[in-house]
Amino acid sequence: MPNTRKYIDDNLQRFRAELFDLLRIPSVSARSEHALDVRRAAEWLAERSREIGLETSIHETAGHPIVLAEWRNAGPDKPTVLIYGHYDVQPAEPLELWHSPPFEPTIRDGRLYARGSVDDKGQLYLHLKAIEAHLKANGTLPVNVVFLMEGEEEVGSANLMPFVQQHRERLNCDAVVISDTTMIGEGIPTIGVSLRGLAYLEVRVHGPAQDLHSGSYGGTVVNPATALARMIASFHDENWHVAIPGFYDDVDAAEDFREKIREIEFDDEKFRSETGAASLQGERGYSTPERIWIRPTLEINGLLSGYTGEGSKTVLPAHAMAKVSARLVPNQDPATIEKLIAEHVRRVAPEGVRVDVEVLHGGRPWRARIQGPLYEAAVAALSDAFGREVVFAGEGGSIPIVPEFEEVLTAPVLLMGFGLPGENAHAPDEWMSVENFEKGVHASARLLTEIANRMGR
Amino acid sequence: MPNTRKYIDDNLQRFRAELFDLLRIPSVSARSEHALDVRRAAEWLAERSREIGLETSIHETAGHPIVLAEWRNAGPDKPTVLIYGHYDVQPAEPLELWHSPPFEPTIRDGRLYARGSVDDKGQLYLHLKAIEAHLKANGTLPVNVVFLMEGEEEVGSANLMPFVQQHRERLNCDAVVISDTTMIGEGIPTIGVSLRGLAYLEVRVHGPAQDLHSGSYGGTVVNPATALARMIASFHDENWHVAIPGFYDDVDAAEDFREKIREIEFDDEKFRSETGAASLQGERGYSTPERIWIRPTLEINGLLSGYTGEGSKTVLPAHAMAKVSARLVPNQDPATIEKLIAEHVRRVAPEGVRVDVEVLHGGRPWRARIQGPLYEAAVAALSDAFGREVVFAGEGGSIPIVPEFEEVLTAPVLLMGFGLPGENAHAPDEWMSVENFEKGVHASARLLTEIANRMGR
Repeated sequence: MPNTRKYIDDNLQRFRAELFDLLRIPSVSARSEHALDVRRAAEWLAERSREIGLETSIHETAGHPIVLAEWRNAGPDKPTVLIYGHYDVQPAEPLELWHSPPFEPTIRDGRLYARGSVDDKGQLYLHLKAIEAHLKANGTLPVNVVFLMEGEEEVGSANLMPFVQQHRERLNCDAVVISDTTMIGEGIPTIGVSLRGLAYLEVRVHGPAQDLHSGSYGGTVVNPATALARMIASFHDENWHVAIPGFYDDVDAAEDFREKIREIEFDDEKFRSETGAASLQGERGYSTPERIWIRPTLEINGLLSGYTGEGSKTVLPAHAMAKVSARLVPNQDPATIEKLIAEHVRRVAPEGVRVDVEVLHGGRPWRARIQGPLYEAAVAALSDAFGREVVFAGEGGSIPIVPEFEEVLTAPVLLMGFGLPGENAHAPDEWMSVENFEKGVHASARLLTEIANRMGR
Repeated sequence: MPNTRKYIDDNLQRFRAELFDLLRIPSVSARSEHALDVRRAAEWLAERSREIGLETSIHETAGHPIVLAEWRNAGPDKPTVLIYGHYDVQPAEPLELWHSPPFEPTIRDGRLYARGSVDDKGQLYLHLKAIEAHLKANGTLPVNVVFLMEGEEEVGSANLMPFVQQHRERLNCDAVVISDTTMIGEGIPTIGVSLRGLAYLEVRVHGPAQDLHSGSYGGTVVNPATALARMIASFHDENWHVAIPGFYDDVDAAEDFREKIREIEFDDEKFRSETGAASLQGERGYSTPERIWIRPTLEINGLLSGYTGEGSKTVLPAHAMAKVSARLVPNQDPATIEKLIAEHVRRVAPEGVRVDVEVLHGGRPWRARIQGPLYEAAVAALSDAFGREVVFAGEGGSIPIVPEFEEVLTAPVLLMGFGLPGENAHAPDEWMSVENFEKGVHASARLLTEIANRMGR
């Protein structure tokens, strides 16, 4: 372990330079015009994996490719760790709000700014560098490793589970490790114990056959933008409870977790200032962390109708569109919630418009079972790397693959994230703390050793 | 008059070819990148006016130029007619919905398709060709003419009234003639006796300082798109009455006009099929023409927030924007209505968002006094050109300058429009009937003669 530690410290500069190369590839999975960039990122990662001695293969899917990098020489008595990460990124728009170009990594004040820096290229790559450190410093790894890298996390991982099902034997493992979450504060090592699921839909309202002159026709047909606004206004009551019938039916009250949350010192004002909002608001009766970790939400992600350019255009729009998504908690089911939302918007649509609803993507919620050697190993590795007690916290976002891994691979999943609040994942000026990238490499290397010590047969 | 008539018939082909040239100039006044095109349209019209013998001048304003083309040789005993038209056009977006390019005029099935064909280049140009016909066929005009062409009608005519005020003596006239309205049906000559006013605002809702990850932050801050939707939903009640306090306070019940409207055979189903909407809907208690001609409305002209591209992006938007406009009827005042709307959106905005409202443009409503020789002359000219009885009808759109002309020039205004229902003014596939352009030239030529006969001193 001292060798590994030294190797990491000696090579951090190069690790960072390599990560810059990966961040320069605009692997936006949602945009078809970036398909070749997504592939380029996969090939780049495969090449880096081969270089350090992993048996590496690229697997085609109906969408973007999956990279598998394996090292199985620790022997059958040693545990096998599956590390998962994704190399695709969110679209970078609106570009004009970035202070440096999204695909030109830039360090300012200890933060590495780039699309994908923290979500998830930086957090993926730190594991590859930890593996390299073990192999180069000691010629071996303390555990068997299967590194699974996918390129469709930001669009719903549609092709990953079929792949995992199909390669269930090959991917058989004792633990799954994922770094795609945030710590609750700077310097506070955090293990994520819950994830929200997702139900994402596009709602389109159709009125007249084409845009009409708002003077000649205004007042005679239903304006689809007005109709859409009325539908959205019916999504919540005055206390910001979701008002769609049946929405909360399957929500687990999570009383145990709620008690743990009450023990955490959560700084509302600090959180508010990160958002830049005038005040924190949300479902009445729940604290801020409860609203993120144990309560579902219903958000508008996008709105478009009519004329939105410079100046005024007196048009009565033919169509209006909203991107709508619910964050889900156990035991809500994405398909059920999608159905409830679709039924609701159709039911409340005023007479005179036509509504269609397209389901764009979904993912199940998850809550961890935190007892056992994997979590003990993680606590040891993280407290060593950060020199501070580890906190168990929830996560408001979704990693659809987590509950599926646990089910198919029958192995516990560890969420060991190195993001920080305000990191702007999915927004302009996404960043990752340079220090967390470096401590992350150390923590990952140590984790493999701790797992070997605690989970051997 | 027979000479004039023959001259028109002999030259219709050329008139149309010239109009095509004018329509090819993308004189979009709302877009700064088209400023030179707007000027080009002004210069083109000035050149055509000079060619036929009018004394022509281009007047700079703070915005787009005003063209004045004069002929004052009929003598002081003859009436002076001020003809007004606008050579600017609405933006052509969304371009993909046009069946032929908006600035490449194309005739299909007797319709001339182009942005600005009916609003208002075609209707402006037919008057210039009527003047040419008189001058070329007879060497003179029966009346003095002042032709006033502006380039800012689609953005609120902000610089026209200061110009008219300043040149009040020079523009002094006995009648104002405007062709920028529609006939109530094919072949039915129509005089417009009312216009709705306009109050156009942009409402912007600001939430977090920048777009946030909807998982990490969803449920803790107010989503500005949701907030905006709630504001818009509060604009109408269940009967599509506008629910903004005070909105109807100054509305004239217009009982006289309402009685005339009841006499017109208005084909709801035909009107509905023009719109392509599933059904006609609107303020309960009023017929379709009443909703357009004597009742105010409140419409959403545009909506924009968050991510609106391909696929799904789980963003909690920082901002949401709506373009909102009210069509007004006598005696509503645009400034008052703008204030009521702005106060209302601020009042209903949920806690946690900031709202700003920008007034983009406004215009007063108008109703004609239809007695007198100008209207008699118009009835004679139109029934001659179309061979059918003239109908007096309202107009749902706005021509902000009309009430101001009447006030400043103390001359009656005649709205003699040659548009047709379904003409797509302000929308893709705008068209003008080729037949109406031609009959319009005849009607305009005849109108000048009829005015000379009835309004001489």
